[in-house]
Amino acid sequence: MKSVATREDVQDRILDAVDRLLASRGYKKMTIDELAQEVGIGKGTVYLHFRSKEDLALSHIDRIVFRLLVKLQMVAHGEGTAADRLRQMLVLRVLHRFDSVQHYTSSMSDLLAAVRPAFLKRRERHFELEARVFAEVIEDGCARGELSVAAPPTAARSLVLATNSMLPYSLSAAELGRRKDVERETSRIAELCLVGLLARRGA
Amino acid sequence: MKSVATREDVQDRILDAVDRLLASRGYKKMTIDELAQEVGIGKGTVYLHFRSKEDLALSHIDRIVFRLLVKLQMVAHGEGTAADRLRQMLVLRVLHRFDSVQHYTSSMSDLLAAVRPAFLKRRERHFELEARVFAEVIEDGCARGELSVAAPPTAARSLVLATNSMLPYSLSAAELGRRKDVERETSRIAELCLVGLLARRGA
Repeated sequence: MKSVATREDVQDRILDAVDRLLASRGYKKMTIDELAQEVGIGKGTVYLHFRSKEDLALSHIDRIVFRLLVKLQMVAHGEGTAADRLRQMLVLRVLHRFDSVQHYTSSMSDLLAAVRPAFLKRRERHFELEARVFAEVIEDGCARGELSVAAPPTAARSLVLATNSMLPYSLSAAELGRRKDVERETSRIAELCLVGLLARRGA
Repeated sequence: MKSVATREDVQDRILDAVDRLLASRGYKKMTIDELAQEVGIGKGTVYLHFRSKEDLALSHIDRIVFRLLVKLQMVAHGEGTAADRLRQMLVLRVLHRFDSVQHYTSSMSDLLAAVRPAFLKRRERHFELEARVFAEVIEDGCARGELSVAAPPTAARSLVLATNSMLPYSLSAAELGRRKDVERETSRIAELCLVGLLARRGA
């Protein structure tokens, strides 16, 4: 058992508390005082790790995506055909985000409106990072002769964009609909897109 | 030449003015007084046609989509293979909306936040109406042996959802990017999805 909390442990505990407060109070009403109290540390310690409330919110969103990237990598290097893995990854990128915010009672709109310009920039970066993992699997599929794709990075980006409409962006989870509906719709989009990548027999 | 303005003419003139005011002032700052003045009619005449400011905004959005539906129908019943028409329609549904709001200097966020619940309901309805036109073309393509689709309405909905991420929803046109980038990305998504609908030779 570790007796000394590492820097990462403290940051994780702070972001866990951000998640709870965003769920119960929403971004606007969340204060750093309340956050410090929730974690059981001083306000100064919060500022040692995060510059501002905006930085906390953006780091919280980053953490959701970084955890997703780990899961995507696991599927990418796992079993199955390239198409199977891509299908799983497309559904995963949507449901991971759905599950990460589904306990938020209010819409994420106030959070996103508050951190908008910085968020849009990071969001573009998140999509790029995801697309790279998809491109790896597409390249692998081409190498195995399962897929036939002229430009894997372009196809990877299109797969990401095609499923972006299913992400909880400014919709709350409640507005987005039920998890199983989101899953079914995303699976259908994935199915449709992936047929376009398959190697043609005899082509 | 018509000497008497019809009900539709007046409504169209009012909505044209709504469009100009949304572009120059934004939803929050727009007033019915200003609107009546812009059209050159009395405030009472505005209320004869529209119940409220919210009704004006929603009717304006409806008009954008109804005009799109007319264009989609024209392409749907036009020349070319089913895949060609579907591809054109997918790009059209994105660019028509892009062009309809690209002159708005501020983000549409304040408009959409103000009319949110009613807007989300209509938006779902808009997608349904669009999907029906797509389903018609898919059925036509199947009848001609060009496409092979088990459930045209389901495939139509997936095509609509797959390109929804390219719509200016809460992004302003500026945030969404340049028109030619939107066009290119949408074309790629369309390309990817449509291969999945093509009839397999010898299948």
